[in-house]
Amino acid sequence: MKHFLNTQDWSRTELDAVLADAARFKREKIGDALKGKSIALVFFNPSMRTRTSFELGAFQLGGHAVVLAPGKDAWPIEFDLGTVMDGDTEEHIAEVAQVLSRYVDLIGVRAFPKFVDWASDREDKVLKGFAKYATVPVINMETITHPCQELAHALALQEHFGTTDLRGKKYVLTWTYHPKALNTAVANSALTIATRMGMDVTLLCPTADYLLDERYMGWAAQNVAENGGSLQVSHDIDSAYAGADVVYAKSWGALPFFGNWEPEKPIRDQYKHFIVDERKMALTNNGVFSHCLPLRRNIKATDAVMDAPYCIAVNEAENRLHVQKAVMAALANQ
Amino acid sequence: MKHFLNTQDWSRTELDAVLADAARFKREKIGDALKGKSIALVFFNPSMRTRTSFELGAFQLGGHAVVLAPGKDAWPIEFDLGTVMDGDTEEHIAEVAQVLSRYVDLIGVRAFPKFVDWASDREDKVLKGFAKYATVPVINMETITHPCQELAHALALQEHFGTTDLRGKKYVLTWTYHPKALNTAVANSALTIATRMGMDVTLLCPTADYLLDERYMGWAAQNVAENGGSLQVSHDIDSAYAGADVVYAKSWGALPFFGNWEPEKPIRDQYKHFIVDERKMALTNNGVFSHCLPLRRNIKATDAVMDAPYCIAVNEAENRLHVQKAVMAALANQ
Amino acid sequence: MKHFLNTQDWSRTELDAVLADAARFKREKIGDALKGKSIALVFFNPSMRTRTSFELGAFQLGGHAVVLAPGKDAWPIEFDLGTVMDGDTEEHIAEVAQVLSRYVDLIGVRAFPKFVDWASDREDKVLKGFAKYATVPVINMETITHPCQELAHALALQEHFGTTDLRGKKYVLTWTYHPKALNTAVANSALTIATRMGMDVTLLCPTADYLLDERYMGWAAQNVAENGGSLQVSHDIDSAYAGADVVYAKSWGALPFFGNWEPEKPIRDQYKHFIVDERKMALTNNGVFSHCLPLRRNIKATDAVMDAPYCIAVNEAENRLHVQKAVMAALANQ
Repeated sequence: MKHFLNTQDWSRTELDAVLADAARFKREKIGDALKGKSIALVFFNPSMRTRTSFELGAFQLGGHAVVLAPGKDAWPIEFDLGTVMDGDTEEHIAEVAQVLSRYVDLIGVRAFPKFVDWASDREDKVLKGFAKYATVPVINMETITHPCQELAHALALQEHFGTTDLRGKKYVLTWTYHPKALNTAVANSALTIATRMGMDVTLLCPTADYLLDERYMGWAAQNVAENGGSLQVSHDIDSAYAGADVVYAKSWGALPFFGNWEPEKPIRDQYKHFIVDERKMALTNNGVFSHCLPLRRNIKATDAVMDAPYCIAVNEAENRLHVQKAVMAALANQ
Repeated sequence: MKHFLNTQDWSRTELDAVLADAARFKREKIGDALKGKSIALVFFNPSMRTRTSFELGAFQLGGHAVVLAPGKDAWPIEFDLGTVMDGDTEEHIAEVAQVLSRYVDLIGVRAFPKFVDWASDREDKVLKGFAKYATVPVINMETITHPCQELAHALALQEHFGTTDLRGKKYVLTWTYHPKALNTAVANSALTIATRMGMDVTLLCPTADYLLDERYMGWAAQNVAENGGSLQVSHDIDSAYAGADVVYAKSWGALPFFGNWEPEKPIRDQYKHFIVDERKMALTNNGVFSHCLPLRRNIKATDAVMDAPYCIAVNEAENRLHVQKAVMAALANQ
Repeated sequence: MKHFLNTQDWSRTELDAVLADAARFKREKIGDALKGKSIALVFFNPSMRTRTSFELGAFQLGGHAVVLAPGKDAWPIEFDLGTVMDGDTEEHIAEVAQVLSRYVDLIGVRAFPKFVDWASDREDKVLKGFAKYATVPVINMETITHPCQELAHALALQEHFGTTDLRGKKYVLTWTYHPKALNTAVANSALTIATRMGMDVTLLCPTADYLLDERYMGWAAQNVAENGGSLQVSHDIDSAYAGADVVYAKSWGALPFFGNWEPEKPIRDQYKHFIVDERKMALTNNGVFSHCLPLRRNIKATDAVMDAPYCIAVNEAENRLHVQKAVMAALANQ
């Protein structure tokens, strides 16, 4: 039984098939690929696009999504094995995942890091706990990666360039400032999918402290080796933007300061000029700009960039619906 | 593309058609006017009737409602233009409304005033923000007016009197006490629809401080000019109730004290006797009583009034379902 | 019009028919017994299994469930009659139940005790308030009893033993430790249904302080008189487990300390050894173990017991879906 925990677990052929299905679901909204089936959407963190797109995707294919928020309107869950559960958690993932699997055909999980200890958060314990105990396929709705966003992003780029072959495009993943130290999930994912698609990828960030976890740097290197393209790291804004076909922005906290954000704050504050603006976009090869949303305007990107015709963030967000329908349909009918 | 932000934006012919559709939906519960379609219900404030009736209305017509609560289980939203978003808000209404419009066919919005500055609240910024950026029709689920309640109320009165023509009826909108300074939305709406229907309307309130905003007093005057009927303001309970065919109750905070409620409290506390009771109802012309609910019993109206046969508040609440189905069907198929 | 407030209100014939329907719904998941119909699920307390199973049950039978959480995303509700509602509650159960009844075909209610005054909590005011004012059938989704769990439990036992006739089985309901003083609902229910099914029931608990409320002890006695079997109370672990066919565990607070839990805590702390473990299970007649979930592992039962083949807690949880479909179908089509 296949889960959808990361794009890296799926072959390029499988990913291409899902993207093709997504394009088809975009043309034909209503179908019966999930008729009478159901998905539990388990949210440990808030969501707008993810919830709406999964819930509607299920509906449009004849299925039903149940939205659960453990610790809020459901019980808090224990993920460690062998624990004497005398603390706050009321039930173990073993029971949660097994019982949900009896009710539904698919389980989606959103679980952000706790931002205390990266060594622990990078284990993706919540998602893996569901995948371990569930007897139905599990979908990553964003944990320390965001594979559904990857597919939506890839589809938006394929639509923009009018081809499924993205090789030869210069792709810049740029760090941007944000008042809070954010999750690296979407950055990890952008690096993963951009290299998977064989693009020439530049990771632009202020300093080496802002490099991504070695797992994802490693996936990217492996993808370059297998799919062509290239990967380079840059700390120079202008040369990174020069000639870019795609600019993708994301803010994240520096991993060496993970869980100890006070000293990172003054460092991060020095790099507010990484904001995506018209001057930088003018350096590109008539490039497109995108972002996973939510985006703080005039912090990560200016109003002018967000409102420009070359901003395809809303297209990408729309594609969440279509790619998730494709993923759900593929998993529920495997 | 037509929104449903206020009844005043719709022609009398259009409103009459919606009320006729609502009566039909009341007779035939199940249909396919929204087959495969969807609505996002965006709640910035709590709801029981509104959520239930919209969600069920969509279901009964073959559609699906997604319920979102920004700032609770979705991201907090920025409504001002040009803001450097370094505060609490995580995304701008421009993106929220555009993205939702890609997912759904209709957007409903509930956003009560913030009760700090009426000059700001009266701009109805949240609703107008959605209407500005959305590319699908937007429905007001109560902001500073409550047009769905207006239609439900009008339909309940048409049912009670056995005619769609309400002209010649004496209609009393009475202020009542409530421990908190409440929203004027339903009062604004009652004044608007009662005058629109050509009734002889009396606005009964303790003092001139409790008059409604000039925008709604103006709409009422305009409606009288166009639809016949009359409008008067009274501070005398007994003469206002005398001969009334309809008594509609609502509590609201006095606008001159908006955002500065401390000094208003002792004033408001003097008028607890505005409660709707059997003695007052006995002064009417065998009149009906209604209220938008929720209602605090023995504060706004006595148990005896609420449980009397002339109380049609539950009928009115039921009609929310029917009128909203008519509004959704009209907007989704325009 | 019949409600489903307690199994004790239903005849044995009716219960047997519901269990037979549930077994049928388990074989044939999709149906139209609730086509176009709806249920409001009113949660005053959190839920995972209950919400998911009711929501999916409605969907799989062509209906729709609306989930409401009063005081959280709906208005707080007043349950007392004649109250001057100048406190926190915004509307009276009379209006809530009447209005919901206009919208939906069924109402489910979850309302745990407030844990302050058992004399008050044992009146089950919230559930009874809904049943009093609603004009549609009301279903108990757990208050001070949990009749849906009873049916799921009974069905799991019938499946395990391969017969609908459970007479002659030795059934042990064992109290277990838990860091908090919990609701007696499931214990009351287990005692009720086990005696109703004519089993030989032992209530195992640390001391007489942990006996259940006399109402449920009385129901059990009445059930024994009518259905055969037996009922005994034991404070001795080994003799209670000896030869048992079924071990059902639940923790609850001692009623004599209700609302005054401080002095009960050190007493309860002495009985952590009531945990269900392999040594105790080895005393049984190759017995099965079950629990209503959520369960704190290594507090109420050990990992080894939870992961053993004789643990049927997940089967029981699954059956919630099937029995609730049977209850909803029976009530909506009466």
